[in-house]
Amino acid sequence: MQKTFTYIDDHFEGMVKDLQAFCAQPSIAAQNIGMAETAHMLVQKMQEAGIEARVLENENGYPVVYGEAKGNSDKTLLFYNHYDVQPPEPIEKWNYPPFGSEIHDGILYARGCSDNKGTLLSRVHAIEAILKSGHTLPVNVKFLVEGEEEIGSPSFEAFVHAHKDLLQADACLWENSAKDEEDNPVVKLGNKGMLYCQLHVKTGNTDVHSMNAPVVPNAAWRLVQALNTLKDEKENILIEGFYDDVLPICPEETEAWKKVPSPEEGLKKRLGISRLVNDAKGDEVNIALYTKPSCNICGVVSGYTGEGQKTVTPCDASAKLDFRLVVAQDPQKIFSLLRSHLDRKGFTDVEVSITSAAAPTKTPVTEKFVQVICRAAEDVYDKPLVILPTAAGTGPRDVFAYTDMPIAGIGCGHAGSVQHAPNENIRLTDYKEAIKHVAALLFHAEQEEIR
Amino acid sequence: MQKTFTYIDDHFEGMVKDLQAFCAQPSIAAQNIGMAETAHMLVQKMQEAGIEARVLENENGYPVVYGEAKGNSDKTLLFYNHYDVQPPEPIEKWNYPPFGSEIHDGILYARGCSDNKGTLLSRVHAIEAILKSGHTLPVNVKFLVEGEEEIGSPSFEAFVHAHKDLLQADACLWENSAKDEEDNPVVKLGNKGMLYCQLHVKTGNTDVHSMNAPVVPNAAWRLVQALNTLKDEKENILIEGFYDDVLPICPEETEAWKKVPSPEEGLKKRLGISRLVNDAKGDEVNIALYTKPSCNICGVVSGYTGEGQKTVTPCDASAKLDFRLVVAQDPQKIFSLLRSHLDRKGFTDVEVSITSAAAPTKTPVTEKFVQVICRAAEDVYDKPLVILPTAAGTGPRDVFAYTDMPIAGIGCGHAGSVQHAPNENIRLTDYKEAIKHVAALLFHAEQEEIR
Repeated sequence: MQKTFTYIDDHFEGMVKDLQAFCAQPSIAAQNIGMAETAHMLVQKMQEAGIEARVLENENGYPVVYGEAKGNSDKTLLFYNHYDVQPPEPIEKWNYPPFGSEIHDGILYARGCSDNKGTLLSRVHAIEAILKSGHTLPVNVKFLVEGEEEIGSPSFEAFVHAHKDLLQADACLWENSAKDEEDNPVVKLGNKGMLYCQLHVKTGNTDVHSMNAPVVPNAAWRLVQALNTLKDEKENILIEGFYDDVLPICPEETEAWKKVPSPEEGLKKRLGISRLVNDAKGDEVNIALYTKPSCNICGVVSGYTGEGQKTVTPCDASAKLDFRLVVAQDPQKIFSLLRSHLDRKGFTDVEVSITSAAAPTKTPVTEKFVQVICRAAEDVYDKPLVILPTAAGTGPRDVFAYTDMPIAGIGCGHAGSVQHAPNENIRLTDYKEAIKHVAALLFHAEQEEIR
Repeated sequence: MQKTFTYIDDHFEGMVKDLQAFCAQPSIAAQNIGMAETAHMLVQKMQEAGIEARVLENENGYPVVYGEAKGNSDKTLLFYNHYDVQPPEPIEKWNYPPFGSEIHDGILYARGCSDNKGTLLSRVHAIEAILKSGHTLPVNVKFLVEGEEEIGSPSFEAFVHAHKDLLQADACLWENSAKDEEDNPVVKLGNKGMLYCQLHVKTGNTDVHSMNAPVVPNAAWRLVQALNTLKDEKENILIEGFYDDVLPICPEETEAWKKVPSPEEGLKKRLGISRLVNDAKGDEVNIALYTKPSCNICGVVSGYTGEGQKTVTPCDASAKLDFRLVVAQDPQKIFSLLRSHLDRKGFTDVEVSITSAAAPTKTPVTEKFVQVICRAAEDVYDKPLVILPTAAGTGPRDVFAYTDMPIAGIGCGHAGSVQHAPNENIRLTDYKEAIKHVAALLFHAEQEEIR
C-alpha cells in the first residue's frame, strides 16, 4: 500500500490537472448542457486509469457510465457516483468562472468539484495509483455513474432494475461526503428522502395594469398566501399528517449523534449569519439538520422582476419547493397530503406537480463494512472518521432498497465547499487524502470481512 | 369645425402611419432604452404639425418635450402627456412584437400605443388638422410631455416647479383615458396616489444546498411571511393606521359613481376569470376599483427560477409592491407605517425602499371645464361621456397641486387595451374619435367659459 501512496504523492500534479479538465467541462442536467460530452470524457479518463469503462445507453434519460476492474478476491465493491452538476446560477456571485477550474491558494473553484466530480475522480485516481504502482486490484470494483442525480434521478431506478445482475456487489461506496466544521473526515450512512415539487397559480389569461388590483385577482398574492399555510414561524410543517410516519430516533443513534461535532459556529461564520433557524445551538443543530424533515422554498417568481418600476398585477406565479424527508416518510404520500392540505385551505386553484421524489434510507452503524471504512481512514487521516447515521442531503440510495448491501458515502469535500451555491470549491489536500482513503479501503477490503 | 373633421377623415391613413412609427420606437424608462431618440422624434412630429416644439433638458432625468401653438383667444390649455412606456416583458406572451406596431383587423398592437403614445399623438394630429384645414388655432395650447411617468415621475415635480411661468394655463387636459366596458367614452377627473416600494431580505452571504434548510434561514420564506402580514384574504390591508386618512365619499360622488357602468362582466370575459376579488359584483366593482386603496405585488423573486430542479436555500429575496392610495392618504406617511408594521411584526431584517411616490388628487365634477369637454364629446361620440370622479390609475397630477386649475383626462384607449400588459392595443376607430374630440374641445373652449 505504501508504494501506492508514494505513487499518489509523486503523480498528484497530473491528477489535479485531470480534475481541472473534468470540472471545466459543463454537465448541467437541468439545462441539458454538455451531458454526452462529459460521459465520454469520463469513459476516456477511466480507461486511461485501467478500468474497463463504457457508456451504457439509457433510453429514458442521460447516458450512464459503467466501469469494471477485476480484483484479487471474489469480493465486489460498487461505486455509485454522478457526473452531472447543479446549474451555476447566480453566475454574478462567483468570484471565479464556474467552469474555469481555477486554483487559488490550494483551493479549486468549479461547479461540481465537490458535488461530485472530485469524489468521482478520486476513485478513478485511486484505481490508477494501485494498478500503476505495481499491484493487482485487491477486490473487484464496479463503477456506476449516472447523469441525473441533480435533477432527482428520474430514470435511475428503472435503469438499475434493468441491470441487477451487472450491478451485483457486496457493498456500495456512495457518491460523496465532506469533512465537518472541525475538519474531521465523515462517512455517511444514509440520505434524507425528498419530494421536489412545483406550485403554479394562474389567475387569468393576461397580466393587467396594477390599477386593477382592487378587483382583479393577483397570482403572486395567491401563491404567497398558499405558501404561508405550509409552515409556521417555528418551522413546524402544517400539512395535516405530515409527521405521522416519522420513526423515533433509537438510543444508539442518539448516542452516535452526540459524537458528531456541532456545525453551529462554522455555519454561522461561513454564511455570515448571527443565528440559525429557531436559534438552534450546539447539539440541537445536528438534531435539526439530520433528523428533522424540512419544507424549503428553492425559488419563487411572479410578475416583473427586472430593473426599476413596473406596475402590474401578475396572472402567473410559481414556486419550487423541496421537502426533505426522514425514515419512514413516503414522498408520494407527502405529495397527496400537500394536495389535500391546499384543497382544505381553499387553494384548489394552486396546481402542484412532482419534479422528483426519493425515499429516505439508512444503513445500520453496526455493519462490518462501516468498520472497514473506519480502519482504512486511520491509514490516511490524522483524525478519526466521524460516523454520520444519515446525511442531510438526498440521493437515490432508495433505488438499491431491493438489496440488503450496506451503503456508505465518503468523499473529498469540506465544510466550506458550498455545494449547489456560488463558489463551490474543494481543497487539494482533501483531494489527495480522498484518493488515498479509497486506495486503502480496497486493500483493507481484501483482508477483512466486509459483510 | 366640419372642415377639420373632413381633413381628419381624408388624412387618417397618414396619421395612423405616424402613430405606427412613433410606437415602433422603444422608449422604456425603466430600462433607459430609446429615451432621447423618442423625445427628438416627437419634437419633429410636433413641428410638422405646426407646433413650436423643443426638447427641454432636464438635468435630473430624461428630457422633457415642450411645445406651444398660439391661438385666437387669450385662453390657454395645457396638455400633459408622457412619451415613455412600460417594459414589454413578458415578451413571449405577445401575439405580435411589442415594438412591431402591427395592425390586425383594425387594431394596432404595440407597447405604449394606449398608454400613452396614442393619446399624445391624437392631440398633435388634432392641432395639425385644425391648422391644415384653414383655421387658426381657437385657443393657446401648451404641450408638456415627460419621459418618466412609468417610473413614477421622479424628476417631474422639480421640473414643473422650475417652469411655473412657462406652464401657466387655465385648464389642463390630462394624459389619458379609455372607453369603458360598455364602450362609453370617459373623462377622468382624478388619480389615485401611489407608493411603489421594494422589499428586500438578505439572510446570509451565500445561497446554500437546501439540505441545510432545517437550520439555515431562507430569504424566500422570510419574504413570504413578511408579505403575508400585509393583507388578509378579504383584501383588508393590515398595516396599522393605513386607513386613518381616507376621506369618506360625499353623496354627490356616490351619485356620480352610480352612472358609471360596472366593468364586471367585461373584465371577467376579457381576463378569462369567473370571479373578481372578494367576489365583487355590479356597483361593488366600481366602488372597489376607484374608491378603495390597494396593496399589490407587482413582482417577487427569490432563488432558482429556471428550468428543472435546483435544490437551494436562497439568501436573497425581493418583492416590488405598489400601494394605490385615495384622497387624502399621504405616500410618505404610508411608507413610515409600513416600516413600523414590519418592525412590530418582527421583520426588522426586511429592508424597504421607496421607488416612487405620488399623492392622490381629484378635480370637482362641478368645474365648467368638465362640462365643455362633455359638450365637445357630443360632436364626436354616439354615446354621452361618462364622468369618472377619479381614475383607478396613478399619475403625477399632484405635481400641479400648487395651481387650482381643473385637470381632466380624455384619450383613445378602450376597455380591452391591456395597458402595462402583453398585447397592449388600441382600435383605429377610437383613435380617429380621439383626434376629433380634442379638435372639437379647442373650438368649444374658444366660445365657452372654461373656468
